[in-house]
Amino acid sequence: MGEFQLIEWVRQQAGRGHPGVILGIGDDAAVLSLSAGCELVVSTDTLNAGVHFDPQTPPACLGHKALAVNLSDLAAMGAVPRWVLLSISMPEHDQAWFEGFIDGFLNLAKEFGVALVGGDTCSGGLSITVTAMGEVQAGQALSRNGAVPGDLIVASGRLGDAALALRRLLKGADPGKAGLLALQQPLPRIALGASLVGKATACIDISDGLLADLGHMVESSACGAEIELSELPTACDLQQCDSETRWNLQLGGGDDYELCFSLPSRLQSELPSWSAELGLELTVIGRMLEGDGVRCIEPGGADYSLGQTGYEHFK
Amino acid sequence: MGEFQLIEWVRQQAGRGHPGVILGIGDDAAVLSLSAGCELVVSTDTLNAGVHFDPQTPPACLGHKALAVNLSDLAAMGAVPRWVLLSISMPEHDQAWFEGFIDGFLNLAKEFGVALVGGDTCSGGLSITVTAMGEVQAGQALSRNGAVPGDLIVASGRLGDAALALRRLLKGADPGKAGLLALQQPLPRIALGASLVGKATACIDISDGLLADLGHMVESSACGAEIELSELPTACDLQQCDSETRWNLQLGGGDDYELCFSLPSRLQSELPSWSAELGLELTVIGRMLEGDGVRCIEPGGADYSLGQTGYEHFK
Repeated sequence: MGEFQLIEWVRQQAGRGHPGVILGIGDDAAVLSLSAGCELVVSTDTLNAGVHFDPQTPPACLGHKALAVNLSDLAAMGAVPRWVLLSISMPEHDQAWFEGFIDGFLNLAKEFGVALVGGDTCSGGLSITVTAMGEVQAGQALSRNGAVPGDLIVASGRLGDAALALRRLLKGADPGKAGLLALQQPLPRIALGASLVGKATACIDISDGLLADLGHMVESSACGAEIELSELPTACDLQQCDSETRWNLQLGGGDDYELCFSLPSRLQSELPSWSAELGLELTVIGRMLEGDGVRCIEPGGADYSLGQTGYEHFK
Repeated sequence: MGEFQLIEWVRQQAGRGHPGVILGIGDDAAVLSLSAGCELVVSTDTLNAGVHFDPQTPPACLGHKALAVNLSDLAAMGAVPRWVLLSISMPEHDQAWFEGFIDGFLNLAKEFGVALVGGDTCSGGLSITVTAMGEVQAGQALSRNGAVPGDLIVASGRLGDAALALRRLLKGADPGKAGLLALQQPLPRIALGASLVGKATACIDISDGLLADLGHMVESSACGAEIELSELPTACDLQQCDSETRWNLQLGGGDDYELCFSLPSRLQSELPSWSAELGLELTVIGRMLEGDGVRCIEPGGADYSLGQTGYEHFK
């Protein structure tokens, strides 16, 4: 299948009639119409084989994850995802692999009402770049920079599961079903992000590891933070690890794609009902402080320090 | 320089205060505000080392070209470019190379008033994906599908120069200054695209080669076309080649980044004044017909057929 046939095949899979799509796949560019009173929220992320993922990852899982990590960025802004572009470089065309990838990608897209409106396919090392576009009422986007001392720090879901699964896989051990799901098919917290608009003072998605991402938030907000390690939401598998392993995975492991947000303390009493509505754990893990940096407190009250804070390319 | 420092460095180079940028580099996503009454026009293209460019290409030229080929897609839609995202994968961080690349990229961005508002940097084989966003008055975007039999086919600039330069480079010959400029630093035809809104019936940028791109246009428009090979706008260097070499480069070489558009014949008399205003050659090279496919006519009236029509990945 040549490049142009491939594009035509993808166009057929992507479907038509999505709202706001004036012109989708098949022209020099897509033409899109934002809802009245909304601003455009746009993010892009690249996943490279051997860097971000094992080339042996099932293609449907990879398709899911490539989209999920981008939708997660939109969730952190409180945006509703609408449209997406997919650029994929492959060493050669393997139709079965490609169909699996597109299947995983479009299944997640459908789940969130997102239309695939364009992209690029070319030869090269296996690499996937997704650009996700969403919208938010003008002036209402969440950002990293609005946290103030006294705000509570809240995390969604559970932390460290994906990092534990990856660690087990690298050791040749069984990561378990739940761990593999967390690593390969994270769910972007779109509904949570949207519900935080007008409530959270700052928000970020936990992709590089809690400590690094919370670090970005306190730096942008010009304040400090402390988190209670005993409060980090922890799945059963991770509870079996010794505490140092557990904290390292939860603070520095990355790939969680949960949201971390700051919340005025007066709203704490509302967390249980939000959590119930969303069907998603929301855990207060610490608070914002005057000063700078993130302090991690062990159950006994001692400061805990992590060697590496989040994955960085080009160290 | 680590990844986060790199992003901060790029943020400083990109500048602030661009219109419509509510939130630029440094959050989970950019937040952008479209002009009233406008639709969003968005396109993405990937350039891979060894596939789309020689890894030895001067980094500033590569930065220029990576942006230019994306802006060219917006030009073909009649859109005004506004914002851009840049994702770059590099095997290792080479600050001098990266500064050169960003310099070339941002110089062209400034020339067209385009703001760099986000992106991604990671390790991997050298690969660049740019997403360009622009706007057009609602309902006014040019597309590939509006050409009708009887319309004139017009090409901007000159064709085949970049392909000739590449051919010379691959043979170890001197491509000449003008040829190298056409290959490495094409200029997107933004002003032309914008001026064609409401006039051209269809438009495409010539990236894959005239015959392939015009082929897309006739297929989308459900008509046919004929072009006069003697009318193809040709630079001096290319006039020295034998006619078969010349036609092959002009029809199938690609990398021209000129616009090809269809125009109602009653507007032909206006071409000279548009050309003068834009400082850009506009040449009638053929006409749209009933039927399908693109017929190329030699000076003597015979049909000319080209073996390969445009570059395709995954043949």
